[in-house]
Amino acid sequence: MSIVLGPNQYGKAENRVVRITRDTARHEITDLNVSTSLRGDFADAHTTGDQAKVLPTDTQKNTAFIYAKKHGVASPEDYALALGHRFLDVTPAATSARIEVEQYAWDRIPVGDGGHDHAFVRRGGDVRTTVVTVGTSAGTGDIDGDGDGDGDGDGDGDSNGREAHVISGLKDLVVLKSTGSEFKGYLRDEYTTLQEADDRILATSLVARWRYLGTDVDWNKTYDSVRDTLLELFARTYSRALQESLHAMGTAVLERHPDVAEIRFSAPNKHHFAVDFSAFPDVENDGEVFIAADRPYGLIEASVVRDDVPEAPEAWLATPGFC
Amino acid sequence: MSIVLGPNQYGKAENRVVRITRDTARHEITDLNVSTSLRGDFADAHTTGDQAKVLPTDTQKNTAFIYAKKHGVASPEDYALALGHRFLDVTPAATSARIEVEQYAWDRIPVGDGGHDHAFVRRGGDVRTTVVTVGTSAGTGDIDGDGDGDGDGDGDGDSNGREAHVISGLKDLVVLKSTGSEFKGYLRDEYTTLQEADDRILATSLVARWRYLGTDVDWNKTYDSVRDTLLELFARTYSRALQESLHAMGTAVLERHPDVAEIRFSAPNKHHFAVDFSAFPDVENDGEVFIAADRPYGLIEASVVRDDVPEAPEAWLATPGFC
Amino acid sequence: MSIVLGPNQYGKAENRVVRITRDTARHEITDLNVSTSLRGDFADAHTTGDQAKVLPTDTQKNTAFIYAKKHGVASPEDYALALGHRFLDVTPAATSARIEVEQYAWDRIPVGDGGHDHAFVRRGGDVRTTVVTVGTSAGTGDIDGDGDGDGDGDGDGDSNGREAHVISGLKDLVVLKSTGSEFKGYLRDEYTTLQEADDRILATSLVARWRYLGTDVDWNKTYDSVRDTLLELFARTYSRALQESLHAMGTAVLERHPDVAEIRFSAPNKHHFAVDFSAFPDVENDGEVFIAADRPYGLIEASVVRDDVPEAPEAWLATPGFC
Amino acid sequence: MSIVLGPNQYGKAENRVVRITRDTARHEITDLNVSTSLRGDFADAHTTGDQAKVLPTDTQKNTAFIYAKKHGVASPEDYALALGHRFLDVTPAATSARIEVEQYAWDRIPVGDGGHDHAFVRRGGDVRTTVVTVGTSAGTGDIDGDGDGDGDGDGDGDSNGREAHVISGLKDLVVLKSTGSEFKGYLRDEYTTLQEADDRILATSLVARWRYLGTDVDWNKTYDSVRDTLLELFARTYSRALQESLHAMGTAVLERHPDVAEIRFSAPNKHHFAVDFSAFPDVENDGEVFIAADRPYGLIEASVVRDDVPEAPEAWLATPGFC
Repeated sequence: MSIVLGPNQYGKAENRVVRITRDTARHEITDLNVSTSLRGDFADAHTTGDQAKVLPTDTQKNTAFIYAKKHGVASPEDYALALGHRFLDVTPAATSARIEVEQYAWDRIPVGDGGHDHAFVRRGGDVRTTVVTVGTSAGTGDIDGDGDGDGDGDGDGDSNGREAHVISGLKDLVVLKSTGSEFKGYLRDEYTTLQEADDRILATSLVARWRYLGTDVDWNKTYDSVRDTLLELFARTYSRALQESLHAMGTAVLERHPDVAEIRFSAPNKHHFAVDFSAFPDVENDGEVFIAADRPYGLIEASVVRDDVPEAPEAWLATPGFC
Repeated sequence: MSIVLGPNQYGKAENRVVRITRDTARHEITDLNVSTSLRGDFADAHTTGDQAKVLPTDTQKNTAFIYAKKHGVASPEDYALALGHRFLDVTPAATSARIEVEQYAWDRIPVGDGGHDHAFVRRGGDVRTTVVTVGTSAGTGDIDGDGDGDGDGDGDGDSNGREAHVISGLKDLVVLKSTGSEFKGYLRDEYTTLQEADDRILATSLVARWRYLGTDVDWNKTYDSVRDTLLELFARTYSRALQESLHAMGTAVLERHPDVAEIRFSAPNKHHFAVDFSAFPDVENDGEVFIAADRPYGLIEASVVRDDVPEAPEAWLATPGFC
Repeated sequence: MSIVLGPNQYGKAENRVVRITRDTARHEITDLNVSTSLRGDFADAHTTGDQAKVLPTDTQKNTAFIYAKKHGVASPEDYALALGHRFLDVTPAATSARIEVEQYAWDRIPVGDGGHDHAFVRRGGDVRTTVVTVGTSAGTGDIDGDGDGDGDGDGDGDSNGREAHVISGLKDLVVLKSTGSEFKGYLRDEYTTLQEADDRILATSLVARWRYLGTDVDWNKTYDSVRDTLLELFARTYSRALQESLHAMGTAVLERHPDVAEIRFSAPNKHHFAVDFSAFPDVENDGEVFIAADRPYGLIEASVVRDDVPEAPEAWLATPGFC
Repeated sequence: MSIVLGPNQYGKAENRVVRITRDTARHEITDLNVSTSLRGDFADAHTTGDQAKVLPTDTQKNTAFIYAKKHGVASPEDYALALGHRFLDVTPAATSARIEVEQYAWDRIPVGDGGHDHAFVRRGGDVRTTVVTVGTSAGTGDIDGDGDGDGDGDGDGDSNGREAHVISGLKDLVVLKSTGSEFKGYLRDEYTTLQEADDRILATSLVARWRYLGTDVDWNKTYDSVRDTLLELFARTYSRALQESLHAMGTAVLERHPDVAEIRFSAPNKHHFAVDFSAFPDVENDGEVFIAADRPYGLIEASVVRDDVPEAPEAWLATPGFC
């Protein structure tokens, strides 16, 4: 019989964990969306229905909430690493655990000195993310099917000798330049109708993910620094294409952060078309009025990498789309 | 024949108008979602297919973009009023125009002194809204069917003698208190299982709309002041129910703003349930870990009004849901 | 003090009630989204925080599930009426209850004779809806502010002498005609650029709601008949505007169903623009290739009514938008 | 300098192509969402802003519409293959093209004999998908970084000697069994609270993608057959876990379709929790009333593969998530 179980994983997705720290009258809030999954030797659950090796997704959910209580959430990365190790500790058949966390930011409501003690307003805008993979993908049920689970040296020698990969990121970072962007000199064929643009709006809703070389990182400080760098380079780069902006952004992130191995972007080109006023003699359009279009949109996906560190395809398994 | 055309309106919804002001190197951005509609004597379009009185929605779209260019957007309210008058000027059959605008906020990317000149990041969070109705609903096709289109004195004697109603508002304002909220002493029946709560999380994603008594208003300044008041009162009110918080918020808005006639709220009670750790001897839950639930949710809808000013039901026609 | 509580209501929204009937091996599934709300004398909850008259939304939720068990769901309308009466029975301060139900259709998976006994596939497409209002809006907290709660004769003398209004409907009914639609002869101004169309695609995602004159109705049979009529008239009407199609659809519904008092439509004109191939000598566009646009879209809202039956504005309170 | 451009691709996403065939009075409609992207030697666009090798996404859009006209859409797969070859023909720097198509189904409105000639109602429910990759990933800009672009023999010797991979699939196929599902015998730790279930609801919203061994396939017939098989096996399999159901479904697909190399599933376990009526003496819950929960949800991702055919990781590049 040549028909067999292939790569697989299972877990509990989108646990909405809200952690309040209330040691003093001045509360703190941490608002997370946590998805966990396990890979390993779970073939029996698929082929015979035997669940003896399966830690239920319900237990994974309980653990996500319990760990938020017992260990707190110093950062999404620390929390995800702890969860990943926990699941491997209690699930002998698991060879690796993947923990994905989104964090929603809140601000204090600005009343009184330094904001209210226990009233908050959600910031909106971009969302901080992390994808942590703990363990190897070796063994039966090996998700990439190559029977090889380590040895590349790019992971981290963690407690219990397990590797750990951390990919941090953000999504829904919507940025726009109202000038300083052009698009011209492109390849033409008989179906080309696009006019060259000397001065256009450039806008995107950025997804970025960057992989760390190890786990001895100040996660919160580095996150802030990478986000600042992305914004700064988007603003400062004269753009001959969204590709060029992304490349400048990614290059600066790697230059400034030696512990970042690579960064990947998925960036829809959110078209803002200058409205054609040529039919109206009394109306001039000098690049002041645009229609923000929905679909279709350009989609630029790109990465910037160090070429002298090992790749880690297992760190990226099952992340959505290109990055 | 007793089967006839009833209330009706038509227009162009969700014009995504982006206006860049670039008189100097320091650009400004105004990002709007504009929906227009007309009411009046358009029965022929329905009953015989004759479009002679109908200003096409395509022309309404053009006008929305042209007005953003020619008149700018000092505020969503000013812009909507201008559009409403324009549509009545050029559409003899129209008795009233309804203009709805959403505005998305952008911040300058924080590089250099005072932020970048032409690079912006979308703020996220709550959205500013306005619903403006210009004209009367009198005449054939009268939308409320009472054959009465004015004379209540609560509108505004505008240019051309038309009434104008302005309802401003916001939506998606997500706020949360981690303490200072209880819910107890409620009515019970045999299907009641809810436990009384002395200390709970209170959270909502607020929609608020407030109606002005006239149009001689500093729209931007008043908007900021109302939003600040809503946040402040949410934070400062000890809450025995979401109803009590909303009432305090609305009352303060009316007390501080004599030109506001009424305010309406639609407020989902975004439940955050304390996780039950009673099964785990080593885990204490002292109000620190919650699950943010999706559905079902409580939905509180309420208003605060002045009882000495005329009502204006025509100002609220066709707004979504309760407010 | 002239600042007072205005109209208000509260309840539990979006209870996802799934009822399986398993009296025999051949199961039935009823899949509902149920939102309940109460109006009446609940001022204390707002002004002083006293909840003594308030039936908690949590109890409303329990009741929605219990009634699905005890009374079954013969139709969304029957179920909603029963819930409405229940809430008034146990909540002395309530003067009216509004129950909104969406129903999602499922088909049996087509294996075996007549489909599988207990395996189903969700049909997708349009959703059946109902909005039921039981009781009067009289008394303190009267939502329409006219101090008048009945006497119009259009409601139904139900158990306990309460009025009951039933508005049934559907949403997300996406229909399209690939010919048999034109748009021309419309009003022009100096901002008109639209070209007349002799032959275009007409498409909409229909929301329709129709109000019954009483409650002695075969709800399921009538629903099917109204839906069939809407589809048939959309298909058969040569359309000089979406307005004309809607009017024909609504008129036929009222002609065929004497127990329907009025029908309201909200119908986005889902534009399908013929792609302009004029730049490509080898490509002819003879109305065969279109781009389905997202925003902006025309939005036609209209109703067809009997002019010899009483209106019932209280039946429509707090429904979304125009209908 | 060790910081370099990594994997990248670009294209136009979500072209909403609607193709009407109107050779006779009986029209046909094909409704597609088309996303195209190119990979290859486009480094200059990123590093220097030189666009000379870049076929603009606007031209890709034009081509998607033109091909729908000139070549029709016999199936999403045929159409995608044609587009992929076209882009490689006119873009010398491109080494591979990825074309993703979603197809929305429409039914004729059931009036007259065999349904209306030119009026349609959208079916809703599941969406047919395909992801086609034409060309190799070899050369500069090679997306998987291994410098190897072919030779595995699993692709298809197509026109111009290019490989072509076809992955067809569906999404949003919502299925439910009201009995015939259990979950017990699972691994326990000190955080386990889940009760074993002898009889539960099993439901999912299935995403499935299957890869073909070649391109000499009757795409429409095979699609229908795979879909039927998935439904049949879901219905007929007694399920000891969603994993077991998926495995049975996937195995049957491969057994019945020798030209399918592998199939991958992403299947949220859409929890339907039996409502706890234990507090209500007069209400029995014998598995008849459930609450359909939103979040969190189990997420089972699995595949069934032939172990005697080559893998094709390049065929799966940039598909969302696990599959």
